[in-house]
Amino acid sequence: MTEIKQMMHDMGRHARQAAMALGRATTKAKNLALHAIADHIDKQRTEILAANASDLEAGQDKLDDALLDRLELNKDRIDGMIDGLQQIALLPDPVGAISDLNMRPSGIQVGKMRVPLGVIGIIYESRPNVTADAAGLCLKSGNASILRGGSESLHSNRAIAQCLHTGLAQAGLPAQTVQVVETADRSAVGELITMSQWVDVIIPRGGKSLIERISREASIAVIKHLHGICHVYIDDKADLEKAVAIAFNAKTQRYGTCNTLETLLVAEAVAEHVLPALGKLYLEKGVELRGCARTRDIIAGINLASESDWETEYLAPILSIRVVDGFDQALQHIDQYGSHHTDAIVTDDIQRARRFLREVDSSSVMVNASTRFADGFEYGLGAEIGISTDKLHVRGPVGLHGLTTEKFVVLGDGHIRG
Amino acid sequence: MTEIKQMMHDMGRHARQAAMALGRATTKAKNLALHAIADHIDKQRTEILAANASDLEAGQDKLDDALLDRLELNKDRIDGMIDGLQQIALLPDPVGAISDLNMRPSGIQVGKMRVPLGVIGIIYESRPNVTADAAGLCLKSGNASILRGGSESLHSNRAIAQCLHTGLAQAGLPAQTVQVVETADRSAVGELITMSQWVDVIIPRGGKSLIERISREASIAVIKHLHGICHVYIDDKADLEKAVAIAFNAKTQRYGTCNTLETLLVAEAVAEHVLPALGKLYLEKGVELRGCARTRDIIAGINLASESDWETEYLAPILSIRVVDGFDQALQHIDQYGSHHTDAIVTDDIQRARRFLREVDSSSVMVNASTRFADGFEYGLGAEIGISTDKLHVRGPVGLHGLTTEKFVVLGDGHIRG
Repeated sequence: MTEIKQMMHDMGRHARQAAMALGRATTKAKNLALHAIADHIDKQRTEILAANASDLEAGQDKLDDALLDRLELNKDRIDGMIDGLQQIALLPDPVGAISDLNMRPSGIQVGKMRVPLGVIGIIYESRPNVTADAAGLCLKSGNASILRGGSESLHSNRAIAQCLHTGLAQAGLPAQTVQVVETADRSAVGELITMSQWVDVIIPRGGKSLIERISREASIAVIKHLHGICHVYIDDKADLEKAVAIAFNAKTQRYGTCNTLETLLVAEAVAEHVLPALGKLYLEKGVELRGCARTRDIIAGINLASESDWETEYLAPILSIRVVDGFDQALQHIDQYGSHHTDAIVTDDIQRARRFLREVDSSSVMVNASTRFADGFEYGLGAEIGISTDKLHVRGPVGLHGLTTEKFVVLGDGHIRG
Repeated sequence: MTEIKQMMHDMGRHARQAAMALGRATTKAKNLALHAIADHIDKQRTEILAANASDLEAGQDKLDDALLDRLELNKDRIDGMIDGLQQIALLPDPVGAISDLNMRPSGIQVGKMRVPLGVIGIIYESRPNVTADAAGLCLKSGNASILRGGSESLHSNRAIAQCLHTGLAQAGLPAQTVQVVETADRSAVGELITMSQWVDVIIPRGGKSLIERISREASIAVIKHLHGICHVYIDDKADLEKAVAIAFNAKTQRYGTCNTLETLLVAEAVAEHVLPALGKLYLEKGVELRGCARTRDIIAGINLASESDWETEYLAPILSIRVVDGFDQALQHIDQYGSHHTDAIVTDDIQRARRFLREVDSSSVMVNASTRFADGFEYGLGAEIGISTDKLHVRGPVGLHGLTTEKFVVLGDGHIRG
């Protein structure tokens, strides 16, 4: 066994032990730990910022501006970590809830109890604040976690881990509830995603290539968040004022998020009534428009969208626009090019609204609302560890609930099967 | 592309198309199809039995008695298929149900809609009746299915598939809702478990080696049913009459099922009071007992259990027995040697019952009831496609519910995010 393999398996075994203790921990102890961690992060601001400064300095020549921006911690981002932990403490504890406890004809009672998954491995890039967010969500949901951040944020992660461990100790919870992989050696990831005896699920957070690679190589279940090619379809029965407001908001409220609109579909019958005003708004805002031929007949001077535009998550002020014959072609387009993340229809026709909700196979389907609402906080789930584009286990924003599972509980009084 | 690969990918594409149509099918149409399939199986008894006879004849020299028994169809087993399909028709349709539709502070309404998974690949051995059972469950839950039975049951499966297709056509549902892989070429399985663009989940049914191989090689999510090393722990606070009844029933009501008791744990304080009577019952019934040293002091003349006995799913009239110090050692034993399938405690102590339910990490945990109750029908789920020993997505008996997922639905009235 190599040294790294040994180290990772030791972490795994310790995580499993911690998970057993944590599964039994009271809500009070878990919340105490969350508040204590938040307090320690607050007290250790100077040390965390110093550690982050050395990461930033080391990254100066190696990382591009976007990565450096993500790597940077500042007062606001530290405040964000503290707020996040305190909010997680306020969320109801999902663990132990028993539902659907029914009496069966045999006389036994059968129900389901919500329980932690066990050990969660989280692999992420750059953002050191994920260390606190992810650890907090795993802790509250009763799971031990093994966190593997990018090597570029090692000092920052280590400083935050210090606060995690102090807080856990203060609440009487095992230090190994949260473990941070402190090696830059990439083979550590290879071990983490294949040691199925110790780890129950892997959650990768980062770019598409990281997530695809992890999914391909993991022999443990992966909750993955691939990409968001989100659509708004403006139906010919739409209220056009609402359509303009929704399509504009869905694209421009934030450009870099996965629930941002990437392709606008417009029914031919209303295209001439809605696209001129909407196009003007986008162009004034600095959004580059790429349209199909019919779109270009209405909004002059924009580039022709190519086939690849329909398949691209821009995460930028770029929008592709297609005029479709109507409802059925819109659904066909979404099915063919979408990423099953979040899609919306604007319509006043109840039959079409009902069909859209039923037939569009995406993690979130919306009627007369902006795709930007697809978010754990907006949905009332609280903080999220990602948005799952998988169908199994959890789909859409992954909050505390998605980090748990259910087992059957059976209560009898000496019942035997006849 | 090889011929087999081409064939499997064609099946996949057709299944995806059928799944889209089936996702929209009414409950009425699906139930009509289930009843029509049952009727055709009833009418085609002669043809099905003839096909089965040729499978049995071909297998005569190649298959052992157990396999031949599983392969055989007779009047009772055909009745079983017909009953199964009719019962599935009676189950409530899970598809389309919307739950937890709540108003959010932003004014949007957010809820969850239950929807089919899409396309399910089922790989099974020997038993041709799985063809009807699995197809029926997939159909009712709105999923298209691709069924790959063992090559030894090819003629039987083909005859049953004929009935499936006639029934589907009668209900106006696409024939490709259910497709049976009609080649003995093993590379078909390799394609099925890796064509993730067409198949959403794989369910292997069969021996442990089949399931382990499929899980290892699949690049699609697998719902797996490994093995059941189930325990009954007789606590020192147990009602000993109930303890004897439960421990006897859990082992002897049926030997070959995954929820059958394999290791009995008895608290030292009551071992002398309960083991003599229980041992006598088992031995009279012809159950071979293998005990720890302390057990052998109480039940004379039985063999010593070795370490490997604690890890063995006998599926036979053999039982290993261990006398433990008490509650904590019982939990430790279950955690170390169990397969997280089904475990029961017999106790009158409410604190211990509560701790057992919370702390034992198995798909079913029971108090004062026989492990034999771990079953879809007994739990009120209806027919099951297997019992999942996984933690993610579905755990325990997998019925219609486990073959579906949820998506978020958002209803607004022109709402945009501020």
